[in-house]
Amino acid sequence: MKLLETINDPADLRKLPRAQLTPLAHELRSFLLDSVSKTGGHLSSNLGTVELTIALHYVFNTPYDRIVWDVGHQTYSHKILTGRRERMPTLRQLDGLSGFPKRDESVYDTFGTAHSSTSISAALGMAAAAKLKGEKRHAIAVIGDGSMSAGMAFEALNNAGVEDDCDLLVVLNDNDMSISPPVGALNRYLARLMSGKFYAAAKNVGKTVLPAPMRELAKRLEEHAKGMVVPATMFEEFGFNYIGPIDGHDLDSLIPTLENIKNLKGPQFLHVVTKKGQGYKLAEAEPILYHGTGKFNPTEGIKPAAAPSKLTYTEVFGNWLCDMAVVDKKLVGITPAMREGSGMVKFHQQFPERYFDVGIAEQHSVTFAAGLATEGMKPVVAIYSTFLQRAYDQLIHDVALQNLDVTFALDRAGIVGADGATHAGNYDMAYLRCIPNMVVMAPSDENECRQMLTTAYHFPGPAAVRYPRGAGVGAKTEQELKSIEIGKGEVRREGKGIAILAFGSMVAPSLGAGEQLGATVANMRFVKPLDVELVTRLARDHDYLVTVEEGCIMGGAGSAVAEALAEAGITKPILHLGLPDKFIDHGDPGLLLASVGLDAKGIAASIRERAGVAEPRLVVNNA
Amino acid sequence: MKLLETINDPADLRKLPRAQLTPLAHELRSFLLDSVSKTGGHLSSNLGTVELTIALHYVFNTPYDRIVWDVGHQTYSHKILTGRRERMPTLRQLDGLSGFPKRDESVYDTFGTAHSSTSISAALGMAAAAKLKGEKRHAIAVIGDGSMSAGMAFEALNNAGVEDDCDLLVVLNDNDMSISPPVGALNRYLARLMSGKFYAAAKNVGKTVLPAPMRELAKRLEEHAKGMVVPATMFEEFGFNYIGPIDGHDLDSLIPTLENIKNLKGPQFLHVVTKKGQGYKLAEAEPILYHGTGKFNPTEGIKPAAAPSKLTYTEVFGNWLCDMAVVDKKLVGITPAMREGSGMVKFHQQFPERYFDVGIAEQHSVTFAAGLATEGMKPVVAIYSTFLQRAYDQLIHDVALQNLDVTFALDRAGIVGADGATHAGNYDMAYLRCIPNMVVMAPSDENECRQMLTTAYHFPGPAAVRYPRGAGVGAKTEQELKSIEIGKGEVRREGKGIAILAFGSMVAPSLGAGEQLGATVANMRFVKPLDVELVTRLARDHDYLVTVEEGCIMGGAGSAVAEALAEAGITKPILHLGLPDKFIDHGDPGLLLASVGLDAKGIAASIRERAGVAEPRLVVNNA
Repeated sequence: MKLLETINDPADLRKLPRAQLTPLAHELRSFLLDSVSKTGGHLSSNLGTVELTIALHYVFNTPYDRIVWDVGHQTYSHKILTGRRERMPTLRQLDGLSGFPKRDESVYDTFGTAHSSTSISAALGMAAAAKLKGEKRHAIAVIGDGSMSAGMAFEALNNAGVEDDCDLLVVLNDNDMSISPPVGALNRYLARLMSGKFYAAAKNVGKTVLPAPMRELAKRLEEHAKGMVVPATMFEEFGFNYIGPIDGHDLDSLIPTLENIKNLKGPQFLHVVTKKGQGYKLAEAEPILYHGTGKFNPTEGIKPAAAPSKLTYTEVFGNWLCDMAVVDKKLVGITPAMREGSGMVKFHQQFPERYFDVGIAEQHSVTFAAGLATEGMKPVVAIYSTFLQRAYDQLIHDVALQNLDVTFALDRAGIVGADGATHAGNYDMAYLRCIPNMVVMAPSDENECRQMLTTAYHFPGPAAVRYPRGAGVGAKTEQELKSIEIGKGEVRREGKGIAILAFGSMVAPSLGAGEQLGATVANMRFVKPLDVELVTRLARDHDYLVTVEEGCIMGGAGSAVAEALAEAGITKPILHLGLPDKFIDHGDPGLLLASVGLDAKGIAASIRERAGVAEPRLVVNNA
Repeated sequence: MKLLETINDPADLRKLPRAQLTPLAHELRSFLLDSVSKTGGHLSSNLGTVELTIALHYVFNTPYDRIVWDVGHQTYSHKILTGRRERMPTLRQLDGLSGFPKRDESVYDTFGTAHSSTSISAALGMAAAAKLKGEKRHAIAVIGDGSMSAGMAFEALNNAGVEDDCDLLVVLNDNDMSISPPVGALNRYLARLMSGKFYAAAKNVGKTVLPAPMRELAKRLEEHAKGMVVPATMFEEFGFNYIGPIDGHDLDSLIPTLENIKNLKGPQFLHVVTKKGQGYKLAEAEPILYHGTGKFNPTEGIKPAAAPSKLTYTEVFGNWLCDMAVVDKKLVGITPAMREGSGMVKFHQQFPERYFDVGIAEQHSVTFAAGLATEGMKPVVAIYSTFLQRAYDQLIHDVALQNLDVTFALDRAGIVGADGATHAGNYDMAYLRCIPNMVVMAPSDENECRQMLTTAYHFPGPAAVRYPRGAGVGAKTEQELKSIEIGKGEVRREGKGIAILAFGSMVAPSLGAGEQLGATVANMRFVKPLDVELVTRLARDHDYLVTVEEGCIMGGAGSAVAEALAEAGITKPILHLGLPDKFIDHGDPGLLLASVGLDAKGIAASIRERAGVAEPRLVVNNA
């Protein structure tokens, strides 16, 4: 690692002679593999961008020139080369390095990313700012072919293509992969671009990029010719100067090409072909398996995990989907490019006709479901809570307004852990319950999750079940596809003085707190419609109400309880516990929940503290 | 009108001989002009789609075949031909016809639209359903070139292009116009497609569409040839069979082309060229002026309105934007294709360099602003409340999470009137206040709106000002660019017993109610951060609190007040007034507000009713 250890920022890198870059790439790749195998994290994508990262920092004057990394899980090399090598062992841990670019972390992280397809918009904003401020500065978006399929990337291309005088470079990192296998017409198109002729001819394209004045002439000739004989790429139709495809692992292609591009004006589009997992045979062979890893032994590779004792909620959903699909031929399953993450691999295998991976296209996924629902099909949209934010208008305007029968399976609701604030599913209860016609449920355990999915499915309008990342309490799921009554919660523990109204994942710790305090604990089940009868009964029979949810307090489920009390004309002291009004960084989910007081101990402590101070009437059984 | 009067549904239309369709089109166009000039509504777009509408219903077997109209403001001909001719005088009025397709209104309205770019997703869903159900049914999306620039349409194209066995037809209604002048690379591309050679050659393309088996052969030859000599259109690259462009006012092109397309398999793309305002010279000359009209005399055309006595909030914003731009060179103004609606025409003229119309691209608009903000520019995103729903994730993930300095000017917040539920700005207070780092303001009058815009602009993080459609109370705006203190409301009327905490547009009617009841009335100004000190003071000094907002009660500003009371450990009877948990149809905004009790009379009545029932302690000065 002697070369890598000399690189503390990109200025050090730029001092290296060209000949040393290839050995450096080898060192970097070894370091990456070693580091990720110890911390877990994204592997395949990072192995695929080693040379591209070196080339970009070598050719461009970072951080003055801006690089925006789309999605950003491929930025480990970038972090290592920009002064964070020694902090890599802290990756994705509490107070450690983020798994994504983060503006707070480094001046080289010009724009925080994590959700896909934002990079061109952000880089275009930077390029427009440079132009307005009269600064000669390059703005570079590095975006994968999967991210390119999202509408947002297209919107940005459409806008950028007419900004003729902006110094914008889009680097398409084409590895023929989103997390799930690639889908969609664009991908097929990119495959054609890469086929035979194009790729061979472009191998040395770096040498053929012409100096500016000659290029102008050539361009005019080319424009003229285009109408008759030359097939233009789609990106040229969008007003970009298209260059490529070139081999993204070949520094002798990358560096001269980027050097030449640096001198061109207007929107540039460089098509780079890389291989996920490059240089580590096991990851090359199974890039999806090595997409996001835990710790593993690099020589042995990832071992099949011992069968875990508990199902994850994702698995509960995946099993339910297959079981319900057997029963009802009208069921269709839709995912915006998250087959693995959403637990739909088995469904895809068993029901290929009824499985729709629409690409990274959340907006489309929801309205596509609405279209299916108008024809009497029963669509189930599996989507992370954080990604449903991308389809919020479609949920309102296309589904809820028309009261269409679409089931939303919201995975990763609440704290998500290592992925951090960008992936937090903290807002769904607030942003969904304000929408008319919606039913919103939160299960307290795995079996209830299965029942709620069945309930949502049979409910003839839009209904969402929001469940957390990872395993639940370990409840056994019954095979029977049973519904529960809409809008009905249940009392899980009878107590005195205090009633804890808990939602979803907070039922278990609330029961713990209830034991300590001798309090009543209700599993509310429904965020909407709220069980108003239960709320008013608990208010009548207790001195103090406490709501607990794994979601933002502001506008959340607890807030719904307070509204119901107001509506009923009941005044009663109430304490809202939930996620505070701030973005919560990455870290272990259990620790994070404890840090905001959402474990049994924290819930009990908050109740005691409040009760002692504000409400002397309150009966507390000190534990 | 003798032909038109015989058409009570498309079956009647299909009985007409071809020769009668042109006279029918003339009658329909006259009827449209006459009708819209009496009711107001969308004119230019409807005059442009007369022939296309006739041709689609003539060739396809509606309603069994499904037509989805993108945006849907061009569906008046469709409504007239599908049994709603006699109801046209009720257009966009309370209990009258909607200005958009609406599933409740007719079986011919297969999918409710209004926000742009949903049609391909919905139609693809219908086509996929037909395939799964084994039904031979056509699904047709009719989409304008403006709508095509939104990412969502691209996502749908990308997905549809690989659904080789779906009977989907996308009709691109290319009139070179969104509401604002067209922008973006796609538009430029479409203009090239329409230029000379293409257009002339395609005039009789209907005759050249080959029967299926021959077409297969031709297609394979073509595919082969493409790599060498034939320029493919972008839509072919996406896997569509591209046909066109053809003249969308020439029934002799339209009908044979559609007849032929009906027999083709897989995704079809028909490029039709129309002219907004076609057949009415005044509208052809000024399509933007005649885009959405009030009542007017068709022979005289739209007269310049007499200078109204009050500024609209849109004008207040437009003036503020120009004034602030003079003071601060860092200001940039961004609109997603709503220059006119958002009041940015003057800004565009005065500051063309700092004006960005990014196209119908809400997602991009917000992240583009974020990119500008990272470079120290001061972006102001002007966007309707309902359209910000389209950029919700970008607001959370790109702006709020990074705490970037972006100002959001949210027009059309609350009830919007004639456009109805699809355009309602009812949810923004709920969906914004749950997001960390956001500042959310609602002005009680025009001058406060100007002050709040200044305040938001100077606030160094994300801040939104939400203001209603149309004119305010008539307050004079001061020229000075004055800020107000963040998080501070004000008492506007001192009273007893009851305190009304009013937000934004509800301050004026609340003052009226306050007069009747002898109540205290506060102008809360900030939805977030809430003036907690004021809330607790009012709670202490009064027996009963009432919150009033022009937004959904669920999770809204009133809910924030209840949370603040709970947080402070205060119990006090509280009544939340606001928009009920249902979608509210189109109609006069004043009448609609009154119908949900949000005028002075309704507010007073609600307070009296509740007070009498639930809170005998309450002091009410009966008025």
